[in-house]
Amino acid sequence: MKTIDVCLSPDLMHLYSVQDRTVVVVDIFRATSCMTTALAYGIDSIKPFASLDDCRAMKDSGYYTAGERDGKKVDGFDLGNSPFEYMADHLKGQKIAFTTTNGTQAIAKSEGAKEIIIGSFLNLSAVANYLLQGNNSVLVVCAGWKGKVNLEDTLFAGALVELLKDHTEPDCDAPIAAQHLYNMAKSDLAGFLKNASHVKRLAKLNVYKDISFCLTPDQYNVIPVLKNNVLIPHRM
Amino acid sequence: MKTIDVCLSPDLMHLYSVQDRTVVVVDIFRATSCMTTALAYGIDSIKPFASLDDCRAMKDSGYYTAGERDGKKVDGFDLGNSPFEYMADHLKGQKIAFTTTNGTQAIAKSEGAKEIIIGSFLNLSAVANYLLQGNNSVLVVCAGWKGKVNLEDTLFAGALVELLKDHTEPDCDAPIAAQHLYNMAKSDLAGFLKNASHVKRLAKLNVYKDISFCLTPDQYNVIPVLKNNVLIPHRM
Repeated sequence: MKTIDVCLSPDLMHLYSVQDRTVVVVDIFRATSCMTTALAYGIDSIKPFASLDDCRAMKDSGYYTAGERDGKKVDGFDLGNSPFEYMADHLKGQKIAFTTTNGTQAIAKSEGAKEIIIGSFLNLSAVANYLLQGNNSVLVVCAGWKGKVNLEDTLFAGALVELLKDHTEPDCDAPIAAQHLYNMAKSDLAGFLKNASHVKRLAKLNVYKDISFCLTPDQYNVIPVLKNNVLIPHRM
Repeated sequence: MKTIDVCLSPDLMHLYSVQDRTVVVVDIFRATSCMTTALAYGIDSIKPFASLDDCRAMKDSGYYTAGERDGKKVDGFDLGNSPFEYMADHLKGQKIAFTTTNGTQAIAKSEGAKEIIIGSFLNLSAVANYLLQGNNSVLVVCAGWKGKVNLEDTLFAGALVELLKDHTEPDCDAPIAAQHLYNMAKSDLAGFLKNASHVKRLAKLNVYKDISFCLTPDQYNVIPVLKNNVLIPHRM
């Protein structure tokens, strides 16, 4: 039987082997929610960068630059980290260079995986169905916050464990813990997360609308899939 | 207000500053349960070693050697990793040199803390009361399993967060997640853990009696406290 494991922080990635696995990178607030939304709205592709300077340099090659540091849009970048920014008509068909505090670092640390895809609540069922159709075991990589474990990414990991439970076995305790937390939280994700540290951090930035949207399951059937270091849409 | 944080794996210790904190090291199955039991039964003191060879060498200095690797007693050592081994009359007043796969590594990684104490379900309330009486913020360091997060240590961390909730604030999401899991599990810890990876590992070694005992709260009022690199008993 296929297995599912959950890496609760990118700083634990050295403990996991990824070469035979499909890695699902998740950064609910808000990198992977933005990536999913962007590709759902017709953006051509997204090139993720761990480094701010590397990302900024892509402007000269015709890319829109996008991303954040510490939850705030980067000075001089075209786009920030709100999914609503990616719903614009003028972005359709465009290429985006993207960097964030945690999400793009988690993608970088997943290098060497058999396959890397992007998950968020916005495409939860699509991701689950994609994984069910594939033959690979799964590793969910939670972006966390600067290495620390966060609740929202853990809940998404738990949602995948729950949706795949009849077809995959948990590899260790992290998927079991995540699944328990998701089942406790699923009837009211926002309520469950109201004391979570990143929700408090975002609330200070007045992004309640983003928080609520990023916790809404199944808005899109698109899955960002990394091919040659670029995220392109796979539609279910 | 004092704060409480939870480090879910020793491999995340670089993210936490400990110099102003009381660190509670926990390795429920079974290092810290053994240490608590040993000091409760009159053993003089326990010197923890991360290295097997350093521990073995203490035999020449009149120490009993104790510990395990991969859940099994070390060849040539006097004692293994079952709390019941530490209830013997002939050990009273003796010194023990102790090394385990995860627990003693977690102690080593907590070096530099204002104070290091040992927690287990066996002395849960004593530890909580000790922390309530002190002025320091708290970091619970879960030993985990070879760097991976485990459920039983996370549940103990959650129990402390729950018991201290009126007097300490969680620092980030890990204590919140641990508290939720503990509150879900507390009416039947063993039942909640029956699918946990380390419980399955121990079950193969036929140590059901140890599992059950290590999950029994409040057997002892003693707290192992690290002074000059030696664990000595503090009685509440």
